Amino acid sequence: MTHPSGTLKLGAFLSGHGSHNASWRLPEADVDASRSFAPYARVAQKLEQGLFDAIFLNDSVAIPDLDADSLARTAQGMRWDPLTLLPALAVVTSRIGLISTANTTYNEPYTLARRLASLDHLSAGRAGWNLVTSLGGGENFNREDHVLHAQRYQRAEEFFDVITGLWDSWEDDAFVQDKQSGIWADPAKIHRLDHKGTHFSVQGPLNAARPVQGYPVIAQAGSSDDGRELAARTAEIIFTAAQTIDEALAFATDITARLGRYGRKRSDVRILPGISVYVGQDAEEARARYEALQDLLDPVSALKGISRFVNIGIDLWTLPLDEPVVLPAAIPVTNTHKSRQQLVIDLIRREQPTVRQLLRKMVAGGHRILFGSARDIADDFEHWFHAGAADGFNIMFPDLHGSVDRFVEEVVPELQRRGLFRTAYEGATLRDNLGLNRPDNRFTRPQPVTAVRN
Amino acid sequence: MTHPSGTLKLGAFLSGHGSHNASWRLPEADVDASRSFAPYARVAQKLEQGLFDAIFLNDSVAIPDLDADSLARTAQGMRWDPLTLLPALAVVTSRIGLISTANTTYNEPYTLARRLASLDHLSAGRAGWNLVTSLGGGENFNREDHVLHAQRYQRAEEFFDVITGLWDSWEDDAFVQDKQSGIWADPAKIHRLDHKGTHFSVQGPLNAARPVQGYPVIAQAGSSDDGRELAARTAEIIFTAAQTIDEALAFATDITARLGRYGRKRSDVRILPGISVYVGQDAEEARARYEALQDLLDPVSALKGISRFVNIGIDLWTLPLDEPVVLPAAIPVTNTHKSRQQLVIDLIRREQPTVRQLLRKMVAGGHRILFGSARDIADDFEHWFHAGAADGFNIMFPDLHGSVDRFVEEVVPELQRRGLFRTAYEGATLRDNLGLNRPDNRFTRPQPVTAVRN
Repeated sequence: MTHPSGTLKLGAFLSGHGSHNASWRLPEADVDASRSFAPYARVAQKLEQGLFDAIFLNDSVAIPDLDADSLARTAQGMRWDPLTLLPALAVVTSRIGLISTANTTYNEPYTLARRLASLDHLSAGRAGWNLVTSLGGGENFNREDHVLHAQRYQRAEEFFDVITGLWDSWEDDAFVQDKQSGIWADPAKIHRLDHKGTHFSVQGPLNAARPVQGYPVIAQAGSSDDGRELAARTAEIIFTAAQTIDEALAFATDITARLGRYGRKRSDVRILPGISVYVGQDAEEARARYEALQDLLDPVSALKGISRFVNIGIDLWTLPLDEPVVLPAAIPVTNTHKSRQQLVIDLIRREQPTVRQLLRKMVAGGHRILFGSARDIADDFEHWFHAGAADGFNIMFPDLHGSVDRFVEEVVPELQRRGLFRTAYEGATLRDNLGLNRPDNRFTRPQPVTAVRN
Repeated sequence: MTHPSGTLKLGAFLSGHGSHNASWRLPEADVDASRSFAPYARVAQKLEQGLFDAIFLNDSVAIPDLDADSLARTAQGMRWDPLTLLPALAVVTSRIGLISTANTTYNEPYTLARRLASLDHLSAGRAGWNLVTSLGGGENFNREDHVLHAQRYQRAEEFFDVITGLWDSWEDDAFVQDKQSGIWADPAKIHRLDHKGTHFSVQGPLNAARPVQGYPVIAQAGSSDDGRELAARTAEIIFTAAQTIDEALAFATDITARLGRYGRKRSDVRILPGISVYVGQDAEEARARYEALQDLLDPVSALKGISRFVNIGIDLWTLPLDEPVVLPAAIPVTNTHKSRQQLVIDLIRREQPTVRQLLRKMVAGGHRILFGSARDIADDFEHWFHAGAADGFNIMFPDLHGSVDRFVEEVVPELQRRGLFRTAYEGATLRDNLGLNRPDNRFTRPQPVTAVRN
């Protein structure tokens, strides 16, 4: 049976020294990967050699909120500004997509529209935007605290309308550019947005040509009810967390139902669960690589970070490592990670892990962790793909060296042998490679599409 | 006599297709220079071959406010986001400085601190920031109109304090990075800013290491009273407009007096007047190049743009081209270009130009225009430099091809022969090449320096 989206799509979710917090301690790790260009240039070129659809850069607008002891042990206080790193990576690559996380809570749409349009032009159509509402940071943006969840999502909805409206400012053929007559543009094809809403008042036009791809590819990771609704309306890539095929299928069914409300269909989106992959000659060697990395993690500071992140009302670091985790009677209400909190609660109820087991599960931020040979990994991917649980995966590489290299050199060829993955890039743009349509310009599309939100 | 700053410093002021609005019509011009990377990569490498101190990218956060007819004839509605273009240029160059204009009115200091710190790390210490309060754009940032002049400058002062405070978040030696012990950083060397001011409330720390240069080199172009005061307190490069040596000397004297109020001295700043340069085999050929470009300009739309820009209360495009310009009895109060308005009034009083002559003068935005052979240009530069009227120049190249190439190939060698310009880069960072000190970290400097502002 042919899968609706053809073959698997693969993103490489990157930040810092990799998705495992201790990876900077590996012998081959460049400790300055968050401020030295060479390690990221290398990994981007390796991923392009592996025909990945895109590099997917994570972001945060604050250092981790940890006590001094824990802060001393995490490398996550230093990070690249993703929209500064990606233009540089665009120069050393030619086909791989370049997706930046950027939040709608502490940015202005005009500024972000320019940055993303410029990146799309610079890379000749390889830009993507992972739209997030941010997991915090208000204290650095003139607020006492982080903006509340519901208000963030309202602002995100309006932000999306404004930023796409700004990208439509110039019609694709607005530029006459006739040296002879001196006519640069056709003013009838330049449009003011004149947006006046609850959160934004933006006149436009944008001072940039419409992106090569119309809009950069829109990615979304929110999995709460608000997050899913926003994804159904706006997202083309949905980056999700699922521990089981059943969870993933339920998520895809739910998203499909929501898509209909916005005149969209399942084939308009690519659902990519995050997954952390450890490749070895066999499962045992793969697990040994994972264990070696786990041994480099300081459990106390890691558990402090996880306790804050999942916010289930337990100070995990104060408990014996080999006792089971017991959920408190009252779970705190969270303003940030609604969906992640629920995922952890489900996991604790389902698997009844010890503190140590939960720590190991959560090292990948609640995403699935997979060990095995290239064939084992390919078996798993094939199973999920054919079950309709995933259109591909956003691979959360534990580090920037071995895990990337082995995936590209061993897993990619195995996926190709099975006809599950491309053997050459299909097109020149990220949109082409993902098999996504180029969006129409709202000022020229034959019939205006009205967003429905109930 | 040895000049206090050694040899001439040269910046290359760039935007769009060059500083002359008609330059996109030249046969060799790439009409897509504002969205295609290759033309800028070429010019950056050429300027580095010419040992320029820095590329200095202009910016604006709105399209020109013109009627449809004029908008049809200007290429200025499309531009790069400078902080997206510069990271890409960092990859194709290795020594030239990369200065971005960015405004303090419609940005947040935490966001801009990250972007500039990332650029400084990416380029190994070549970033600079041209601090402006913006010439407009409020309509794209939730405002009815542009923020008022005085309020913009108050915000700029506070923005500077916050952004430099954020750059000081991590001491230079805060990173222990000991793989063996797992200690990443020394928390005693990480500092919260806890700024609570009139315009900003920012906790920090920044999630980026201190820039390679401590701070990126700070440039400033404001020439009004508020602008000069801000420059005296903050700027290391002052980009100014002066038509005569006397004007430039008066400006330098004024700045020197103001510097004292902040415990700074003349050698802490580099004053670089803007200048548009046309190089030929002789003055006649140079002038012919200039005239050819002038002939490509539509006078009506150009005069509309200039009338808006200088705001002296005359609709220049409605007047006969060869009649003298007569100043009105009452000059309008301007909220944007206070210093540029005064410069034009002085020019009209001094030279009594016709409309056509004023148009030609103003093509370079009020900056001086110079024609001649390489020797003529070098004579002029030498004269200004030895008179103490300039530490160097910010060259406003009319286009991205001939004017850059001839300057690099003919004027630079002539300046070198006279001992006026470097024959190799002095150091690895922009700060090194400009001969500027690396700023201390406020959290570690021996004696705190208090800003004095009366």
